[in-house]
Amino acid sequence: MKLAYLGPPGTFGEEAALRFEPEGELLPVPSHAAVAAAVESGAADAGVVAIENSINGSVAETLDVLIHETSLKIRLELVLPIRHNLVAKPGTRPGDVKVIYSHPQALGQCRKFLERCYPGAQLEAALSTTEAVHLALQRSGDAAAVSTRRAAELYGAEVLAEGIQDSSTNVTRFLLLGREGAAPSGRDRTSIAFTFPEDRPGALAAVLNEFAKRGVNCSKIESRPTREAFGEYVFLVDFEGHAEEPGGRDLLEAIRPLCAELKVFGSYPRSP
Amino acid sequence: MKLAYLGPPGTFGEEAALRFEPEGELLPVPSHAAVAAAVESGAADAGVVAIENSINGSVAETLDVLIHETSLKIRLELVLPIRHNLVAKPGTRPGDVKVIYSHPQALGQCRKFLERCYPGAQLEAALSTTEAVHLALQRSGDAAAVSTRRAAELYGAEVLAEGIQDSSTNVTRFLLLGREGAAPSGRDRTSIAFTFPEDRPGALAAVLNEFAKRGVNCSKIESRPTREAFGEYVFLVDFEGHAEEPGGRDLLEAIRPLCAELKVFGSYPRSP
Repeated sequence: MKLAYLGPPGTFGEEAALRFEPEGELLPVPSHAAVAAAVESGAADAGVVAIENSINGSVAETLDVLIHETSLKIRLELVLPIRHNLVAKPGTRPGDVKVIYSHPQALGQCRKFLERCYPGAQLEAALSTTEAVHLALQRSGDAAAVSTRRAAELYGAEVLAEGIQDSSTNVTRFLLLGREGAAPSGRDRTSIAFTFPEDRPGALAAVLNEFAKRGVNCSKIESRPTREAFGEYVFLVDFEGHAEEPGGRDLLEAIRPLCAELKVFGSYPRSP
Repeated sequence: MKLAYLGPPGTFGEEAALRFEPEGELLPVPSHAAVAAAVESGAADAGVVAIENSINGSVAETLDVLIHETSLKIRLELVLPIRHNLVAKPGTRPGDVKVIYSHPQALGQCRKFLERCYPGAQLEAALSTTEAVHLALQRSGDAAAVSTRRAAELYGAEVLAEGIQDSSTNVTRFLLLGREGAAPSGRDRTSIAFTFPEDRPGALAAVLNEFAKRGVNCSKIESRPTREAFGEYVFLVDFEGHAEEPGGRDLLEAIRPLCAELKVFGSYPRSP
């Protein structure tokens, strides 16, 4: 089983891929759109994408790939605890650290630690937590990076401090995407997206009423720009149930006529 | 009138601030949270924050500031067209450009241009479009930045290509925040946020029904993590009307008992 994920190696995406498929062969690619393209083209059997973090919210790039760029199906989800570490070139002393690199979200998730312990350090953006390690290692012992423990091991950095994230409930939800959907498991979630024929009062309320009437719980609702006109949105809803079981099928049939477009991203077992 | 905005000078935030208040004195600060803090503390009279882009969607940091960190009121909105430019050290020839810096969102918004015209260039993240100009100018003529025209002028860079954004409908909505709300203008929008007592089927539908019953158009709905428990959300809705006029007041009174918490971010004239 070959899994594409957002690389480079050492990111949380790699950790999620290994949890989905411990024996899987891993294919790091440069973007979430490339994860989808790798699976669609057959270069990978499945793909791993981050969809939501408990602090930062939805991963907009992944939502947009699901809405606009792929017809792959979500097969499985995984909720991964996020632990950040401060890492540096071996031998670096905490007092030497003048610059700290990381992805802006990782820097944001460790803001309290960094302000308390490294108030004078300059924070610098990197494209990933792994790239941050490379940037820190290129400098002469006055830099550190916020990254995974695995990135530190892979690239020969030393861990100066571990578990430095501000929130102990920092988790990210990852999805496994495949060319075919998953069969009903009895405890499924379905993710859909829809638009309305025009921007009219009550359209969204009418759709949500179909859920409410059936006692179906919407675990999430989100909106993204259509990219066509400002102020027009694609709505994304997660609900409990499977699109191929009677309850889910009936619900989708009820809301389809209320929507201009309706896309089912997949039905998949909920993470415990 | 002193306006705080997300600096440094040369960003779209500065351009928005100058449109809100052409004669205003400008105070660049390092984050959207700092914009709010500057106004609350009296260091500035009003603050300018980006809330939404037509390609990238909502600015999560601004939503979180409004939800969690401030009781400032939205007084005005402004929709600003976003034009990106490729700029470099004077004398740089297009063929010399090996590295292109910018904020990841700006790089994303110019992806097609960059892939077509600079397929071999390495893209590097910067914390702002202005910082990208500084990074490009520090190098020896083999780098460029995606930035505003004003940043090029302010920092002595040359424009290699202008209007390089992929979408001609790329606009950003900015808000003006103040310590007091705005009086009704007759064509207002109100922005609110609310949570529910527990995650129960139909709660959101019940709230949206109150809008639908009155024929009030929800121009936007969004969710953000509560930061307390994964899978619990704060919902954000924009609707047409003013909280201090009978229609808006009646609506807010109807939905208040359905919510655990309800926060009104402000009522303000809609951008034409």
